[in-house]
Amino acid sequence: MRRFTADDACLLLARLRERTPLVQRLTNAVVTNFTANALLAIGAAPAMTDIPIEADQFAHIASATLVNLGTPHAEQRAGTPWVLDPVAVGVLSVRTQLAADLLAYAPTAVPGNASEVITLTGLGRGGRGVDSVDTAEQALDAAGQLADRFGCVVAISGATDSVTDGIDVIRLSNGHSYLTQVTGGGCALGAITAALLAVGDDRLVATAAATAVYTIAAERAAVGDGGPGSFAVAFLDALASVDTAAIRASIAIS
Amino acid sequence: MRRFTADDACLLLARLRERTPLVQRLTNAVVTNFTANALLAIGAAPAMTDIPIEADQFAHIASATLVNLGTPHAEQRAGTPWVLDPVAVGVLSVRTQLAADLLAYAPTAVPGNASEVITLTGLGRGGRGVDSVDTAEQALDAAGQLADRFGCVVAISGATDSVTDGIDVIRLSNGHSYLTQVTGGGCALGAITAALLAVGDDRLVATAAATAVYTIAAERAAVGDGGPGSFAVAFLDALASVDTAAIRASIAIS
Amino acid sequence: MRRFTADDACLLLARLRERTPLVQRLTNAVVTNFTANALLAIGAAPAMTDIPIEADQFAHIASATLVNLGTPHAEQRAGTPWVLDPVAVGVLSVRTQLAADLLAYAPTAVPGNASEVITLTGLGRGGRGVDSVDTAEQALDAAGQLADRFGCVVAISGATDSVTDGIDVIRLSNGHSYLTQVTGGGCALGAITAALLAVGDDRLVATAAATAVYTIAAERAAVGDGGPGSFAVAFLDALASVDTAAIRASIAIS
Repeated sequence: MRRFTADDACLLLARLRERTPLVQRLTNAVVTNFTANALLAIGAAPAMTDIPIEADQFAHIASATLVNLGTPHAEQRAGTPWVLDPVAVGVLSVRTQLAADLLAYAPTAVPGNASEVITLTGLGRGGRGVDSVDTAEQALDAAGQLADRFGCVVAISGATDSVTDGIDVIRLSNGHSYLTQVTGGGCALGAITAALLAVGDDRLVATAAATAVYTIAAERAAVGDGGPGSFAVAFLDALASVDTAAIRASIAIS
Repeated sequence: MRRFTADDACLLLARLRERTPLVQRLTNAVVTNFTANALLAIGAAPAMTDIPIEADQFAHIASATLVNLGTPHAEQRAGTPWVLDPVAVGVLSVRTQLAADLLAYAPTAVPGNASEVITLTGLGRGGRGVDSVDTAEQALDAAGQLADRFGCVVAISGATDSVTDGIDVIRLSNGHSYLTQVTGGGCALGAITAALLAVGDDRLVATAAATAVYTIAAERAAVGDGGPGSFAVAFLDALASVDTAAIRASIAIS
Repeated sequence: MRRFTADDACLLLARLRERTPLVQRLTNAVVTNFTANALLAIGAAPAMTDIPIEADQFAHIASATLVNLGTPHAEQRAGTPWVLDPVAVGVLSVRTQLAADLLAYAPTAVPGNASEVITLTGLGRGGRGVDSVDTAEQALDAAGQLADRFGCVVAISGATDSVTDGIDVIRLSNGHSYLTQVTGGGCALGAITAALLAVGDDRLVATAAATAVYTIAAERAAVGDGGPGSFAVAFLDALASVDTAAIRASIAIS
C-alpha cells in the first residue's frame, strides 16, 4: 500500500503557489520573523497577530493556523486545518498543561521530535509524559497512539522522518543537520505543514509533502556549506526555488 | 511645477547619515529586527520599546516615530514627525478602529498600499472603508482626500509609487517585487520615511526621498537574484551603500 | 601578573562545544532571534521564555541566564551564573530603576559600553548616573567600583575592550565596527558570555574569553566587506567556525 509519492508533493506545492493560502501563526517572538519569511518564500501568505480578539477574527479569515507553545497565550479554532507545534512540551509545566488542553481541540497535524511526541502521548493518557531516552521505535509507537486518539497526523522529525495517521506510516530521509542550528527551523516546518494542509484534501499526504519540501530545500541550501548563517539565507532561497524537478530528483521515500 | 529631484534625495540621505536621527518604532514583533537593521544600514539609529510608560518617555527623545498597527498597543505624540503604517487596516476590526483613532493625531506621513490607503480614507469619513478592488486611480484620489483632511503626506506603494500632499503628486518607478517577499519590507519603508522626515523640512520631499532610496536599494539588491533570503541580506547591504551616484543613475521620477 | 591567555579562550570554547550549555535569555523581541542563532552557532543551546512563571522554572534548568533591559518584565535567580546586559540604562527611567533593582541580585558579569557602565556605577551609589561625556578612563574606573561593590566582572566594549573584576584588567583589541550596525550584536555578546560562564570556573577569564571569541569572529566576518546584511550572516558563520587556530592567530591581548 502506497499513499505518498513525489507526484503528491509536486502537485500540492504547485497548488500552494497558485492559491497562496493565508497562514495565521500564533507563535513566539523568537521565530516569528523566520517563519513568516519561510511562508513567503514557499509561496504562502503569513499573518500574525498576538492579540486575543484579533486572533479570533483572524482564525475565520486564514486558510490554516499554526499554534506553537513558545509563547502560550492564545488558542483558536475555526474549522480550518490547524497545526500544533509542541515546542519544549514536557520541559515546562505551563506549556505542558497548555498542550494537553489544546489536544482536546483535535489538531489536524502535530509535528515534533521523538521526545515531544512521546511526551504528548503521555499527556493524552493523563500521565506525566515519558522521561526516558526516546528511541525512534518508541516515538513511532507513541505517534500511532496519538494519531488514533485525536484523529490527527503526527510527524516525527529525525534522521529519518516518519509521518503517520495511525494507519499508514510514510518515511522520508531527506534533510540536513543545519536545520537544528537555525532558530525557527521547526516552527517553519509547522507553518509549511499548515500551508499545505490548506490546499490538500488528504492530511497524511499534505503533512508528508510538507516534510518532503522542507527537508529537500534544506539539502539544497546546505550545498554551499558556509555555516549556519549562510544556511538560513540559502534555505529561504531554496524554499522559493524548490520545484518539481528538485523534488523528483531528491525525494527519499522509504 | 517640480517639487522633487534626485538632488533632494541625495541631500536628505547625506544629512541623515550626518545626523543619525533616533527613530522610535512602535511595531510588531515579526518585523522589528529587520526594521532595526534597515535603520542601522541606512545610517539612522533605531530605538524600540513596547512598554507604554517608556514609549511616552522615548517619544520626547526620538527624532521621529513610526507607529505600525501590527501589534496595536500604544500611541504617542511629542511634536516630532511621526509615520502611521496602516498594516492590514480594514482586515481586522481592532486595528481598523485604532487606525481611525490615530489619524486624529495627524500623522506626518502615511505609507501604504492602494487598499490600505482607500480603507483609511473611508475611515476618515466615518465610513466602513472600501472593500472593492482598488485601482491606482482610486487610491490616488483617496490619498489626496486623506492628505487634505489630515494635513499628512500619503505614499502609495505599487509598480509605480505615488507620493502626495494633496496638492502635488510625485511618481516614482523604482523597486523590485522581492520587496513583497520579505517580512518587514513595508515596515522598513515606514522607518526610513520617519528617519528622513527627521532631517527634512519639506514633508512631501522627505517622504518621496524615502521611497526613492528604499526602492533604488531594492533594485540594486535584486541584481544577484539568488532568492528572497539572499535579497533580504543584499537589501541591507544596499541600504548601507546607496549613495548619490546610485541615486542619480537610477532614480525614475515621472 | 597574567590572568588570561589565548589558551584560556581555546579551552573554554572547546568545553562549551562539548557541553552545549542551555542559556536562558530574558531579552527583548528585537534581538531575540539573532541572539538565539548566535548561541546555536557558537555551540550552546538557547532557550527563551517571557512568561514569568516559565521564566522561574527555566532558571532552574538553564546553565546560565542573560537578562537584558530591552523589555524589562522579569527577573530570576537560581544559583547559576547570570549576565546583566544594561541596554540603554540611564536613558529611560523604567529600565534605569530596574537595573538598580537587578544589581542587588549580584550578576556574575555585566557587559556594557562606557556610558552604560558609568551610569550603572552611579546607580550603585544611589545617584542619578553620570551624564557627562564618558571616556575610557572614566569607564574603567567606574567598572572597577562596580565590580568591587557587587562582586561581578565588568566588560567595557570599545575600540579596546576592557574586562575587570576590580583587581585585574584584561584588555582586548579585536573586533570590527560592523558589530554596531547589527541589531542584537551587544545582546549576542551577553549571551555568549553567559554560555562561557556556564562552563568556566574563573568568571574573569570566562568573560574575557567571551569578548575574545566574539570580537575575533567579527573580524573574520568582516573580511568580505559586503555591508551590514552580509556581515550579520558571516558573523553567525564565523561563530560556528572560530577555533583554536583562529583564536591563536588573531587574539590581541594587551
